[in-house]
Amino acid sequence: MRENRLREIWGGGGHSINGWLGIPSSYSAEVMAHQGWDSLVVDLQHGVVDYQTAVTMLQAISTTDVVPMARVPWLEPGIIMKMLDAGCYGIICPMVNTRAEAEAFVGACRYAPDGYRSYGPVRATLYAGADYQANANATVLALAMIETAKALENLDEIVSTPGLDGIYIGPSDLSLSLGYEPKLDFTAPEVLAAVTRICDAAQAAGIAAGIHCQTPAHAKKMLALGFQMVTIWADGALLASAAKQAVDAMREG
Amino acid sequence: MRENRLREIWGGGGHSINGWLGIPSSYSAEVMAHQGWDSLVVDLQHGVVDYQTAVTMLQAISTTDVVPMARVPWLEPGIIMKMLDAGCYGIICPMVNTRAEAEAFVGACRYAPDGYRSYGPVRATLYAGADYQANANATVLALAMIETAKALENLDEIVSTPGLDGIYIGPSDLSLSLGYEPKLDFTAPEVLAAVTRICDAAQAAGIAAGIHCQTPAHAKKMLALGFQMVTIWADGALLASAAKQAVDAMREG
Amino acid sequence: MRENRLREIWGGGGHSINGWLGIPSSYSAEVMAHQGWDSLVVDLQHGVVDYQTAVTMLQAISTTDVVPMARVPWLEPGIIMKMLDAGCYGIICPMVNTRAEAEAFVGACRYAPDGYRSYGPVRATLYAGADYQANANATVLALAMIETAKALENLDEIVSTPGLDGIYIGPSDLSLSLGYEPKLDFTAPEVLAAVTRICDAAQAAGIAAGIHCQTPAHAKKMLALGFQMVTIWADGALLASAAKQAVDAMREG
Amino acid sequence: MRENRLREIWGGGGHSINGWLGIPSSYSAEVMAHQGWDSLVVDLQHGVVDYQTAVTMLQAISTTDVVPMARVPWLEPGIIMKMLDAGCYGIICPMVNTRAEAEAFVGACRYAPDGYRSYGPVRATLYAGADYQANANATVLALAMIETAKALENLDEIVSTPGLDGIYIGPSDLSLSLGYEPKLDFTAPEVLAAVTRICDAAQAAGIAAGIHCQTPAHAKKMLALGFQMVTIWADGALLASAAKQAVDAMREG
Amino acid sequence: MRENRLREIWGGGGHSINGWLGIPSSYSAEVMAHQGWDSLVVDLQHGVVDYQTAVTMLQAISTTDVVPMARVPWLEPGIIMKMLDAGCYGIICPMVNTRAEAEAFVGACRYAPDGYRSYGPVRATLYAGADYQANANATVLALAMIETAKALENLDEIVSTPGLDGIYIGPSDLSLSLGYEPKLDFTAPEVLAAVTRICDAAQAAGIAAGIHCQTPAHAKKMLALGFQMVTIWADGALLASAAKQAVDAMREG
Amino acid sequence: MRENRLREIWGGGGHSINGWLGIPSSYSAEVMAHQGWDSLVVDLQHGVVDYQTAVTMLQAISTTDVVPMARVPWLEPGIIMKMLDAGCYGIICPMVNTRAEAEAFVGACRYAPDGYRSYGPVRATLYAGADYQANANATVLALAMIETAKALENLDEIVSTPGLDGIYIGPSDLSLSLGYEPKLDFTAPEVLAAVTRICDAAQAAGIAAGIHCQTPAHAKKMLALGFQMVTIWADGALLASAAKQAVDAMREG
Repeated sequence: MRENRLREIWGGGGHSINGWLGIPSSYSAEVMAHQGWDSLVVDLQHGVVDYQTAVTMLQAISTTDVVPMARVPWLEPGIIMKMLDAGCYGIICPMVNTRAEAEAFVGACRYAPDGYRSYGPVRATLYAGADYQANANATVLALAMIETAKALENLDEIVSTPGLDGIYIGPSDLSLSLGYEPKLDFTAPEVLAAVTRICDAAQAAGIAAGIHCQTPAHAKKMLALGFQMVTIWADGALLASAAKQAVDAMREG
Repeated sequence: MRENRLREIWGGGGHSINGWLGIPSSYSAEVMAHQGWDSLVVDLQHGVVDYQTAVTMLQAISTTDVVPMARVPWLEPGIIMKMLDAGCYGIICPMVNTRAEAEAFVGACRYAPDGYRSYGPVRATLYAGADYQANANATVLALAMIETAKALENLDEIVSTPGLDGIYIGPSDLSLSLGYEPKLDFTAPEVLAAVTRICDAAQAAGIAAGIHCQTPAHAKKMLALGFQMVTIWADGALLASAAKQAVDAMREG
Repeated sequence: MRENRLREIWGGGGHSINGWLGIPSSYSAEVMAHQGWDSLVVDLQHGVVDYQTAVTMLQAISTTDVVPMARVPWLEPGIIMKMLDAGCYGIICPMVNTRAEAEAFVGACRYAPDGYRSYGPVRATLYAGADYQANANATVLALAMIETAKALENLDEIVSTPGLDGIYIGPSDLSLSLGYEPKLDFTAPEVLAAVTRICDAAQAAGIAAGIHCQTPAHAKKMLALGFQMVTIWADGALLASAAKQAVDAMREG
Repeated sequence: MRENRLREIWGGGGHSINGWLGIPSSYSAEVMAHQGWDSLVVDLQHGVVDYQTAVTMLQAISTTDVVPMARVPWLEPGIIMKMLDAGCYGIICPMVNTRAEAEAFVGACRYAPDGYRSYGPVRATLYAGADYQANANATVLALAMIETAKALENLDEIVSTPGLDGIYIGPSDLSLSLGYEPKLDFTAPEVLAAVTRICDAAQAAGIAAGIHCQTPAHAKKMLALGFQMVTIWADGALLASAAKQAVDAMREG
Repeated sequence: MRENRLREIWGGGGHSINGWLGIPSSYSAEVMAHQGWDSLVVDLQHGVVDYQTAVTMLQAISTTDVVPMARVPWLEPGIIMKMLDAGCYGIICPMVNTRAEAEAFVGACRYAPDGYRSYGPVRATLYAGADYQANANATVLALAMIETAKALENLDEIVSTPGLDGIYIGPSDLSLSLGYEPKLDFTAPEVLAAVTRICDAAQAAGIAAGIHCQTPAHAKKMLALGFQMVTIWADGALLASAAKQAVDAMREG
Repeated sequence: MRENRLREIWGGGGHSINGWLGIPSSYSAEVMAHQGWDSLVVDLQHGVVDYQTAVTMLQAISTTDVVPMARVPWLEPGIIMKMLDAGCYGIICPMVNTRAEAEAFVGACRYAPDGYRSYGPVRATLYAGADYQANANATVLALAMIETAKALENLDEIVSTPGLDGIYIGPSDLSLSLGYEPKLDFTAPEVLAAVTRICDAAQAAGIAAGIHCQTPAHAKKMLALGFQMVTIWADGALLASAAKQAVDAMREG
């Protein structure tokens, strides 16, 4: 089975740079896959993407060696398993607030006896190889989003969920939940404290910690805190900001 | 009928900043439409876009007051008329090399007696208003691409074609045709000479001159030469370059 | 943030005329958006539409000032939040039968601290404006469908759910649940009594009441009962009935 | 091979009622196919439809016994043959102005030795039967649009083109070409004279005559002139007018 | 209402041969529908298909008299009801492990008073006829998948669920759950024992038993065990194996 | 630039086995790409595929090292250039009957000074590498279909067209044109004589010869004649025949 480079990077003590895809197009996905990311996440939650389009985006990513992942819209087994069957090497699940939810999520990502994932890896086998089933449980990443006050309360129980590979922080939702404006590159000390605590809890539990960021500057601070995986920008935001900058440059002078 | 703001801008002696859409997605088109462009061209020639997707992109642009245009794949009446029916306020036609081709192109954009455009503006009427037919010939822009040595030979005949609203230079193809590497922001003196000659011929003929550029810096030079319309970047290139820059920033240090 | 015209209309004591979209096409959606409706609902439950197509339909509606809404297939947070992120100004949720379900529904439509909606309004910001997050909770409408005997039992608890903006009656399902044939323009006295009771309960609770109708004649009766929002026909039914009428006219004589 | 019911109807001295599809959706196509039309034309010229969507619309029509046809965007062999391969039982070609164009059109619809249609009826065989190739030339209809002053000049030469099955009048374009406003249900005597002349020429040449209309009232007048095929409305116009009527009914009183 | 041929076949003591569709294309679906299957299942679970594409596939199947069915991704009412509205004559639901789940599944497939299916059979009425609602509960098949050790424990309670029409075995998941490699054409005695027990329990409860197979040889063994419905291969597997065989034949010699 | 393996194979005196894609799906394309073909042709002529879908199919093929090609619907520069920009390493053009057509076709595939291909290889650069432009003319294959009596007349002039890389025989059309039934695996001596003559003429001119076949047995005969490239079956035919065989196996006994 094709290896999961994120496991290698993290296992070697390194960190990974993750890109984010919300534009529903296999062409923009392929363009993104050529820019040097370690992994790319097709965002089915807040991205403008659903399953059928996502498959073509995963195929586009598969023309490179970038690790293909997806964020699902919600903790719903149907779409989690469909995205795994489509060849994702990692699933990010939003709003995992309790141990029971974490277990339900992990179970959806694992074949028996480790979980209740249904068997039928139609495209995954094309991407990963004929020995997919034997190795999928140990290869595919299950990352639970910690992004609410409630999840903070249950933090230790969540991070110690058997089979969970890591957590992923959504700073906007976490900020909102703690009473702040939603911001990716947060500045509120209370948010920073929570983020630090989550990262530390993940490390203590021996699992990976990832976080969604906007700018490289902020992402580097997060790496300094110990995160193994940082996301910067999303394709739509990159496009908007680069276009605005270009137009502004033309309007000047 | 809704006015064509490009005609207003150019008529007032101003110039317009044009954006370029090659990603086949109505969402990325809508993102682009919010960045300050005067007009946006859906590129059906070198963009990864065909008619059915282009319609949704035009609808996305129509949620703003940016002028919607298209570049067609070739001088083929079928697709020119389909894009006009879909509500484009301007058509850019590649590789117009002779007076006959210029006339065929203009004719496809105009209702009788000015041309042979077939009547059936299904979406154009929704976008432009119920009086579309009466005003379309005077509103919709027909821009012929001058981008070959052959077109240079026939330059005066082309720019004087009745009903032609302007020319648009593709510097990559023009460079190739003159024996240089294809470059948007060209530097070869011979290419500059040709570009200047085309711009001057357009001005002399009383029609607009537009040109495809990459960087704002180069585009400003083109404005200084007298162009009324400059395109900078394309969505795919903006995305690629912004993403690469972000990844590079993360890899540093 | 762009205002929600339905709130204005209802706040001023008026009523709104709502249209219904089940044909999966951004073009038919745009055609409908030009016919004078106050709002249009993209129906992801019984309409032949899923998320990816729905986005293009919302963009088409956004070329006008008609209020864009959606009916989701079921009380599932994933799709509710995706439709809100896509720019819907109101969500109609089917089969809300208990207070707990009403709370789960409202929560999915509201950012913390009012609910658990996840933050990421990618297209909503383009449609509504940059201040979307601050105003979304007070702008977006959450309408719960009351359409079963069970919901009637729990009526008062449902209509008093904090944050619920209104109820919406599906007369077909309500009729079925009460033992009658499914009919939009119902005639059974028991159904009328239930409908009246629901409308009154909503008014008493200070929230809006909407109802699905077929003919204008019936819809006017519903307005006379006190409803603030009536839906007439759906695009597919309009098309079928107009086409049948035209063909019949040709076959006559 | 499945018979072409239009040939039966016309052969028996009858006339057919044709519907028109411009909404790009297989669902609205299927709805239309249930309303009693003899045939339905997927309009790839002024309809908002291209090939890939058209195939699903033809499949939807094929769930009924309505005769599936298409209007192509222009006299281009590529799309004519693709639509025939997709199972169309008739092609309407716009703007056939000369005998040479009529011959090029007919040739594209016929296998050798009658024409130059390329062999590969992938879906046509599924629709029509395994003996498609042997019978296609005698089954599939080739209808040339007569809609310009130039075509009127060449009328006799066009209608006598070997293999041409009929002509189809686009009154809007014909009106425009003769100096009148584009109207389906024309009233100008000169247009009526031209329409009558075309119909008579077709009958004299032993081929069918069809015409595009809006209202049943006008279509019946055309039948009285001798036409074998009349089109009334199009799906988008039916939808718009029925919706507008319904909204207006609500706004009254 | 159009009859459900599977009910006729099974009612007459016969068995049906079922095909499986995982390629997201209405064209391949139509090709499959011409190969002699009694029924075809559009697989929204492990197939590469979601709702919008599935509708066009159902339309393609509806051009023939093959019974159209779907497997849904999970026991989620939203998609179950959408597929029924789209005209499916049977739903296969994965991983039904308890009586409560079986009841929830059956309820989603039945109108009141037998269940809680919401009314709005937009395409189903086109396919089945105007009397759909009155007869749907007795026509549409609800088949629960028995494919886990847990379901085996609850077998008798599941098969006796009122309104359940049959069970369907997924041998791969069942094998996995029992500690074996996932295989469609299983050989392990323990799996065979479980399969036999499930088939017998279904027969005893008076409901149908179906099973997923790969090869005809294995499927015939299953028929010998008493199954009423066997699936052989899936479109993707058929394509892969036939293509590989053809290429291998070329590489030989 | 990524090499064109077909050039290597042919240059080394070998032959290539080509597969054919007419099902409009990136998933079936990816399945096919894993079965051992040297190259795969996306068929935009008789396949049920247009540009937008074709791009996702090319991306799917690009996840492997199979050489991606396309057959265009007709000798139309717009679609030829679009398919090249999308990353095709070879274009097969139907019905090339004269030297002038052959030159027009080759010119559309080559950048100046060798031809008139317009510059803008948006996806081709992603697939092939940054040095695409410099090497494209020498890498991309232009294959003209010889499939009519007229082309036979002009055979020597066609095969000697500068820049033409090979010819490709469509035996069905060639048979039809010579007065026989259309058959891929032809048996008529006159057709065999023509096929042999074409193959010999190509060899004499130093260009490659390819031919469309059905069965491996016939394809091997063609290889024995000297062809460098043989196509066997098409995905739709493979699927149909494998499915029919499987159903028949079930119906037996």
